Amino acid sequence: MDKKRDISMAVIKRLPKYYRHLAELLRNDVDRISSKELSDKIGFTASQIRQDFNCFGGFGQQGYGYNVKELYNEIGKILGTDKEYNTIIVGAGNIGQAIANYSRFEKVGFNLKGIFDTNPKLIGVRIKDIEIEDVDNIDAFLSKNSVDIGIICVPANTAQKIADLFVSNGIKGIWNFAPVDLDVPEDVSVENVHLLESMLTLVYLMNEQKAK
Amino acid sequence: MDKKRDISMAVIKRLPKYYRHLAELLRNDVDRISSKELSDKIGFTASQIRQDFNCFGGFGQQGYGYNVKELYNEIGKILGTDKEYNTIIVGAGNIGQAIANYSRFEKVGFNLKGIFDTNPKLIGVRIKDIEIEDVDNIDAFLSKNSVDIGIICVPANTAQKIADLFVSNGIKGIWNFAPVDLDVPEDVSVENVHLLESMLTLVYLMNEQKAK
Repeated sequence: MDKKRDISMAVIKRLPKYYRHLAELLRNDVDRISSKELSDKIGFTASQIRQDFNCFGGFGQQGYGYNVKELYNEIGKILGTDKEYNTIIVGAGNIGQAIANYSRFEKVGFNLKGIFDTNPKLIGVRIKDIEIEDVDNIDAFLSKNSVDIGIICVPANTAQKIADLFVSNGIKGIWNFAPVDLDVPEDVSVENVHLLESMLTLVYLMNEQKAK
Repeated sequence: MDKKRDISMAVIKRLPKYYRHLAELLRNDVDRISSKELSDKIGFTASQIRQDFNCFGGFGQQGYGYNVKELYNEIGKILGTDKEYNTIIVGAGNIGQAIANYSRFEKVGFNLKGIFDTNPKLIGVRIKDIEIEDVDNIDAFLSKNSVDIGIICVPANTAQKIADLFVSNGIKGIWNFAPVDLDVPEDVSVENVHLLESMLTLVYLMNEQKAK
């Protein structure tokens, strides 16, 4: 575990990208790859790639290239995809349903255990064999089931309440799609997907290009 | 337009967040706010906030606070939300449909003009008065309609083809949900939403916390 410490956020943010590209190489039956070839593929410099991998103890021999399968497995272990994670989704609107139906997540070890909503029209509807339950049942559900990650797909004004519910039930990871910044204890990790902010960033970049 | 130049990406990435918080203040009928109050709300330091706003010429008088409405409008103008943008979505699967149904986008000036898919079961289905069309019609559609932003919600292996089609039809902004890095000319802006990478980052952060 020690080698995980003191890795900069910049490196960490690149790991999932390496992981994705390596998965693609594996699918294409590529056995070995040099940092130069990886660089051409991913767009980071070869020296950046070697530096990043050195943070985690290297992987692979200079000049001989990396073993793709090993590298994929090692980065997976660092990321934590060698374990499985139970998840629940709160908010079964468009985004919630899209996440629930996103098959890629299962492939990397995310097991959806429950979906919750307040809308009577949605409660009882099944998504992938999971019946959408009333949000009022979350507390009882979490006391009986072990859940690692809570996914928030509710509107902004109720997101904090759901986060509090997660925290009080011992959930340590929150994936938040609501357009708010959640207030959680230090030992709880939050990753935000703020779609509107992403779209506004795109618009800004486009306008800046136009002004050039 | 000049004041837009040479702003660091870090500042730019914060603007949509300011914009979101100011929208919330407006909805709550708050007229004026100090950088200290904004800081408590957003979580950036007051000095950071003043510095950011100075990049764009200040807004507001020291000690007197910012006029929320003015600040909101000014940041909106900088981001480009004072204009409207025509968009199309390619890929009407879960994510594509979620984006198509996301009402917040219309409110900030994004007008969805077309949705395209290859799946015969989806072609002809209506989402919000827009009939899903065959991907083969994109070229003809783009030659007749002015589209500013193309939204890619197709699988990884066809995303680049769609991006090429966008570029060849003069689209300058791409919002990409496919888990690939697109190759586009310099004058085309791309903003990626890589959901799996976001989820993997969360898992890494959780495991790191656990190791502490």
